[in-house]
Amino acid sequence: MNVEPQSLEALIAEFSSLPGIGQKTARRLAYHMLTRSKNDIERFATSLTYASEMVHPCPHCHAYTDQECCSVCSERAGAKVICVVEKSSDIIPFERSGIYRGLYFVLGGVISPLDGIGPENLHLAQLVERVKSENIEELVLALGSSPEADSTALMIDRMLTGTNVKRTRLARGIPMGSDLEFVDEVTMLRAFEGRVNL
Amino acid sequence: MNVEPQSLEALIAEFSSLPGIGQKTARRLAYHMLTRSKNDIERFATSLTYASEMVHPCPHCHAYTDQECCSVCSERAGAKVICVVEKSSDIIPFERSGIYRGLYFVLGGVISPLDGIGPENLHLAQLVERVKSENIEELVLALGSSPEADSTALMIDRMLTGTNVKRTRLARGIPMGSDLEFVDEVTMLRAFEGRVNL
Repeated sequence: MNVEPQSLEALIAEFSSLPGIGQKTARRLAYHMLTRSKNDIERFATSLTYASEMVHPCPHCHAYTDQECCSVCSERAGAKVICVVEKSSDIIPFERSGIYRGLYFVLGGVISPLDGIGPENLHLAQLVERVKSENIEELVLALGSSPEADSTALMIDRMLTGTNVKRTRLARGIPMGSDLEFVDEVTMLRAFEGRVNL
Repeated sequence: MNVEPQSLEALIAEFSSLPGIGQKTARRLAYHMLTRSKNDIERFATSLTYASEMVHPCPHCHAYTDQECCSVCSERAGAKVICVVEKSSDIIPFERSGIYRGLYFVLGGVISPLDGIGPENLHLAQLVERVKSENIEELVLALGSSPEADSTALMIDRMLTGTNVKRTRLARGIPMGSDLEFVDEVTMLRAFEGRVNL
């Protein structure tokens, strides 16, 4: 016999539609919600709809914002370095490290014909337009390390041929704290290729 | 610089308030929600408030229900066996196995003085009252296997002294599919103590 109330089943289904949340975790979360106060539930539901209504891509860099323009684009206007990332959440580790004080540009993914993502699905033209109109001096590519990301980087590089914009990409190598024994072949290959003088 | 919109931060905070969801997973889930349609978000938010408003404990057995009385209590009225569990979700594995066709009673926890849970915080009196008034013939204890659960079981047993109600508890032993090599000491002890004739 199905002993779960329908409204609870519906909530379990919603939780299990989230990425990385299986049926068991979804059930645990849904039952947990029943133990929370009406106020808590109301706040959760409101923040869901509120975030979904308020947050939109910044018109200049496509990072998520709930203002007219994102905080980076407004506070660092005039910066001459722009960092190109795949998605909005990729900006967080940069800001957390505190090393970077320039602009960002969210590409919206990488070219991947197998997934039906061509250059026209990304904000490539807008990137080139911004780089030129704002006299950007350096463009730092911080895309992933997949073959698709590499060919997207190559395409951006080509689109900027003839300009004076310096194009760089993040270093690839051994991450901090990792045991050499467990480093994969490709990382090792890249770390070796990119070795630097002491 | 904090680059996350406030409304997104609020949503991340809500997700990270869920049990077993850390900061990173909460951020992943919140960013995921931004990619969903307004309809999806609306449905999620509604099912949260709806479940929280509709679902309440069954007045007879304290299992969660969104009807006046839970489906087990209404459809199996008159059954003479009652199974006592700690919480509502403990009923699911019973119903999934299909072995049991009796009533349930959700105790609401086990006696645990360290957590401030005394007999008066559980539905003990209502359990005894129900067992007596409905002429229950067997009470199956399906509480956890902690010392607190054991002493709660003992207390229920004592409260029914003088009645003809048969008291049983679930068998303890080696679970299906487990490798003997990795069975813990207490499980092994209980499996050995509870060995049965072939």
